[in-house]
Order: sequence, then C-alpha cells, then structure tokens
Amino acid sequence: VIAATQDRLAEKQLIRRCGLRTAPFDDEATLPAIVKTRRGGFYGRGQRRVESADALVLALEELREPILESVVEFRRELSILAARGVDGSVAAYPVVENHHRDGLLRVTLAPAPELSDAVSAEAAMIVERLLDTLGYVGVLAVELFETDAGLVVNELAPRVHNSGHWTIEGAVTSQFEQHLRAVCGLPLGDASAVGVSAMLNIIGVEPDPVAVMAIPGAHLHRYGKSPRPGRKLGHVTVTAPERAAFWSRVSAASATTGLSVDAWSKEP
Amino acid sequence: VIAATQDRLAEKQLIRRCGLRTAPFDDEATLPAIVKTRRGGFYGRGQRRVESADALVLALEELREPILESVVEFRRELSILAARGVDGSVAAYPVVENHHRDGLLRVTLAPAPELSDAVSAEAAMIVERLLDTLGYVGVLAVELFETDAGLVVNELAPRVHNSGHWTIEGAVTSQFEQHLRAVCGLPLGDASAVGVSAMLNIIGVEPDPVAVMAIPGAHLHRYGKSPRPGRKLGHVTVTAPERAAFWSRVSAASATTGLSVDAWSKEP
Repeated sequence: VIAATQDRLAEKQLIRRCGLRTAPFDDEATLPAIVKTRRGGFYGRGQRRVESADALVLALEELREPILESVVEFRRELSILAARGVDGSVAAYPVVENHHRDGLLRVTLAPAPELSDAVSAEAAMIVERLLDTLGYVGVLAVELFETDAGLVVNELAPRVHNSGHWTIEGAVTSQFEQHLRAVCGLPLGDASAVGVSAMLNIIGVEPDPVAVMAIPGAHLHRYGKSPRPGRKLGHVTVTAPERAAFWSRVSAASATTGLSVDAWSKEP
Repeated sequence: VIAATQDRLAEKQLIRRCGLRTAPFDDEATLPAIVKTRRGGFYGRGQRRVESADALVLALEELREPILESVVEFRRELSILAARGVDGSVAAYPVVENHHRDGLLRVTLAPAPELSDAVSAEAAMIVERLLDTLGYVGVLAVELFETDAGLVVNELAPRVHNSGHWTIEGAVTSQFEQHLRAVCGLPLGDASAVGVSAMLNIIGVEPDPVAVMAIPGAHLHRYGKSPRPGRKLGHVTVTAPERAAFWSRVSAASATTGLSVDAWSKEP
C-alpha cells in the first residue's frame, strides 16, 4: 500500500481496481487539467494547473514522470479516516471537511457540517472497500471530493493524517491510539466524535499562546519546530458541545493562526 | 498550604479559619471516633476507628501524635477540584462521587449522580473560599462528606488528585493541563465535563488489557509499576455521552479491575 501511494499512477489504478471513482487521468484527462509528478510531490509541490495545450506541453516537459489529471469540479473537499484491526474489524471516524490554501491543509471541520446521510454512507463504503480489498491493518486516510455525481477519491494516506488531528480531543479514541490498537492486535476503540471540533494548522508563524488558550475549548499543540514560511509548526483544536457555541470560538482561533474565517469559509 | 495539609490538626484549624465545617475534633469529639496520626498517614494507614473509652485509650497510646475526630454520619463521599490562576480567576470541575475500600479510593463517578444544585453550589463555594483565603495558585482537591446538615470538609490535597484522573478524557481540560496553565500564569481552561465518566483504580493486580480495551469508551492507564497488594498500578476511565449507555460499561470495567459494581455501589 505504501508503494502504491508513493506513485500517483499506481495509486489511481489501485483505487479503480477497488471499483471506486478517481479523477479522469492519462488518456481520459481533458483540459483544464493538473500535471503532477508521479512520485515525491507533497504539500502541493510538484504539480501545476494547465488550461491550454501549450501550457500542458510545457508542464509535461518540465515535471519529472508526469501524470495528467482532469480538474474535478467539486463542492468541497472531505476526508474519511478509518482503522482496520488484525481481526478485520473496521472503525470509521465521521467524515470531515477540509480547507486548503497554497497546497496546504489549513482547517478541518469535524464532523463535516451539513453532510447528507447518503454521502456519509458512501464515504464509509469507500474506506471499508479499500481497507478490506487491501487487507490493511492500521489507520488509513482517504481524501475525497464531494461532486454532483458523488464522491471522487483524490488521494490515500496509509497512516494517521493531519485531517485526523482533531480526534485527540474531539473523538472518544484518538487516531494515534487507534493506530496502535490496530497494529498491536488490540480491540479497536470507539471512533465517535464528542461534540464538534475544528483543527486549524499553525503554518509559518507561531500564534500567541495566551491568545489561543484564552479561547474556551481551544487546545494548542506545538511541534517544537523552528518557524519557517510554509512550515507546519503545530495546530489548534477547538471543541464545543454543539454548533451554537462553536463558530465564535473557531473564528477567534482562526484569527490567532493568522487566517480569518472568511479566508477559508463562507459560514457566518 | 503544603505544611498545613501535612498536619491533620493544622489542616482542620485552617479549614475552620475559612469558616467551613470539619468533623468535630479534639475536645469536641465524641465516640464513635477515629484516632489518626497528625502526620504521615496515607491511604488509610495510621488511623483506627474506636467505639469505646478503652479502645480510645489504647489507640491514643499506640499512635504517634494522635488527633481524635468524631465519626461523621455521611450519605456519601464527594470531592471537588478547582484551579486558581495567578490573576485570581477560578475554574471548578463538577463535584464527583468517591467510593473507598480498605482506605483506598476505588471508584470516582463524574459528575456525581443525582447531586442537588444546592450541594453543588455549596461545594463550589467551599473550594473558592479556600482558594481565595489561601491565595492559592494551581489545582486544589477538597474531600467532602455529604451529610444531612450540609457538606463537611474531610481533607485537602494541594495538588492534582486521584479523584480528578477522569478529567483526562472526561473534561474539556484535564487537571494536569489545568495545573500547568495555573502555575505558568496562562488562562485557565474550561473545566466542564464532557458526557459522564467513571474512574476505576487498578489496585494490586493488572487487569487483562484486551478485556479493558474491548469496552466502548474505556481508556486504560498503566503506571509501569510492579504489582504488589494494595498498590495503585493504574486506572481505567470509562466515558459515555450520557447515563443510558454508561452503567453497562462501568460494570464491565469494574469487573476487569477485580471489583464487582455491587461491591461499591447500590446502582443497577
């Protein structure tokens, strides 16, 4: 699985073999498209959006081992994380909504607001299909696009994932504990959410810790890294019992990370 | 505060100076009574219950620096933990119900079931009075007896406390994070409970970890100590969103720690 997910072509073929939808790629792809390197791209590096045939030719020449994908028209980006145990049992976390900027995950809302039961069930089916087909043990993250035609699988991450950091405070069992339970052959823990959470990445600049900690339900995680533009230095998780108290906290926490809520969300 | 709480006589005088109720002690005490050593008693050691004048004389001779207390007729044992910050702000956790056996805390139920608003408010008043009078900074635990005449202060613990271990999973901010916030001069965190929790001490014998982890909402904490009779080796915290799902989980978890629910509780 690790080998397949390190090669965008093998990854897409794997997803298709599981009977799941990916963006049209290679010969199927149409413009506008994204040209990506098959290997080594990360945090939005090694990829380029192309609108014209000329730009496409240039990108194919410049990027090493390129793969071409159609741009998917999506309503929003989602992800689902689930664990599979040694005994084949599966525990899926609720679907979450992700907001990226400059190729970096900035915000995860957990559970995804206003998600239909149908989409939620489709996401659970997708991750279970992948886990079972692969005979996977541990936590798997699946990045998804919500489209008018249903869910499209964007990428797999065979590990605990940034869009699952909210589970430390926001779920009964954190993704880290869950991964250890799975690989140690222990029973999987309850993957239910506790209230509602938002995870806000700290990128490039450390926030004022006092400002973060003054927000009710806010939890500051610092990774002990030296600040550098575009580097993930930590994250803030904001929890609340329900949505009523939630948005004012998220708004305050988002501001401490240098990004207004309006910059990533249309929500009030 | 540490000096006072290491001497049962000074502690009781301190509590009285704050205008709070203690068990009748010294000249006020009547039989049946408990003779305790003023210093060094812990986990129920260094104390003896006496019913008669003869037994009293014997105990006073045998125990070093004895202090005499009346036995308090109580409905149940409670405790309240709260933190006070450098700026004088106070955050109190919900009142919890404690069950002891052989002088050792076995179970904490958080929040205390069926607690009246009046008792809850009285407990909050007591801990705030103590914190403010002492100019205390950090987490303070107050052990209480619930009696027909109101709350009686049994003991103070000037630190994080075994009856607060449930806060790791069961409160927005754990008592450990809260203590650090307080002593570092940071804003105090939200001390609200998240759902309902039970903390069950692991005493003397390690439970089967697989049996514990198979219980939904159960969290196993092992302290890495060698097993020995009467030694606290760890604890299990059981969480649930509400009481409906709670008791079957508590019952299962209690059994793994070698103590049936009936042994400490009349609850179904």
